[in-house]
Amino acid sequence: MASRILAIDPGFDRVGVAILDEKGVLFSCCIETNRKLPHEERLLMIGKELGGIIKKWKPQDLAIENLFFNQNTTNALKVAEARGVILYEAALAGLEIYEYGPQAIKIAVTGYGKADKLQMGNMVKKLVSLPKTSSKRLDDELDAIAVGITHLATQKSI
Amino acid sequence: MASRILAIDPGFDRVGVAILDEKGVLFSCCIETNRKLPHEERLLMIGKELGGIIKKWKPQDLAIENLFFNQNTTNALKVAEARGVILYEAALAGLEIYEYGPQAIKIAVTGYGKADKLQMGNMVKKLVSLPKTSSKRLDDELDAIAVGITHLATQKSI
Repeated sequence: MASRILAIDPGFDRVGVAILDEKGVLFSCCIETNRKLPHEERLLMIGKELGGIIKKWKPQDLAIENLFFNQNTTNALKVAEARGVILYEAALAGLEIYEYGPQAIKIAVTGYGKADKLQMGNMVKKLVSLPKTSSKRLDDELDAIAVGITHLATQKSI
Repeated sequence: MASRILAIDPGFDRVGVAILDEKGVLFSCCIETNRKLPHEERLLMIGKELGGIIKKWKPQDLAIENLFFNQNTTNALKVAEARGVILYEAALAGLEIYEYGPQAIKIAVTGYGKADKLQMGNMVKKLVSLPKTSSKRLDDELDAIAVGITHLATQKSI
């Protein structure tokens, strides 16, 4: 079992990132890309920042949320492009990749497959010890931690 | 105006790749990924092979086909992930990126926005000089060359 996990809530405007082990969250952040930048420069920023985080924290596994279609299909394609860059950077660094669907994540964290954002955030804060931060933790960061919790729980039960 | 272009027909099973300048096609190939490999290893293969081609041929521009939704949405997301890796490798190497829709490519190559595969392939072969190859050129390769022709024509008319 991997001792250190990189957990990701994929996105294009914002990518939630967390590093966890069994003791809790070691690090979390949100990579935000500037909407005014060209498309490819935003992908470049996501890949480079993530590459730096992998180099610094040396996780063994990547746990990442699966992508499903929502009503905004143009946005779904952009997120998929960012997700491709994330998987690519992880594969370049030799991480093992595990994907989890939104419902599996909700069940692992709250025991309820239709939990809302607030319920998810509250349970995440109860389940793991979070490093102190001066700034408010963004939803995307909490979502990434939730994916990490799901991976830890899944690995334990195998 | 760029003297050397990398033109791409994006895909996940197959990525059509061409290097062109105003005199014709210098190189073309099709990156094929093994369906039996895990998802991320296929993205890794696409990114690494493309990175090698960019390093060898040193193009200044990337011309790539835009992605639109077809009926197979799962496949569209996979192609978008591969497209993200392609844009990322191009951006890492500092290429300028130009995107063209399928209809613009058909009009640039045949003068007809609803041209079929056969009409496109025949016109591509008439419009540019192709390097001799011992193997049959795949549709994806010809599609990539068509994107390159579109970029050359667009740059000339600006």
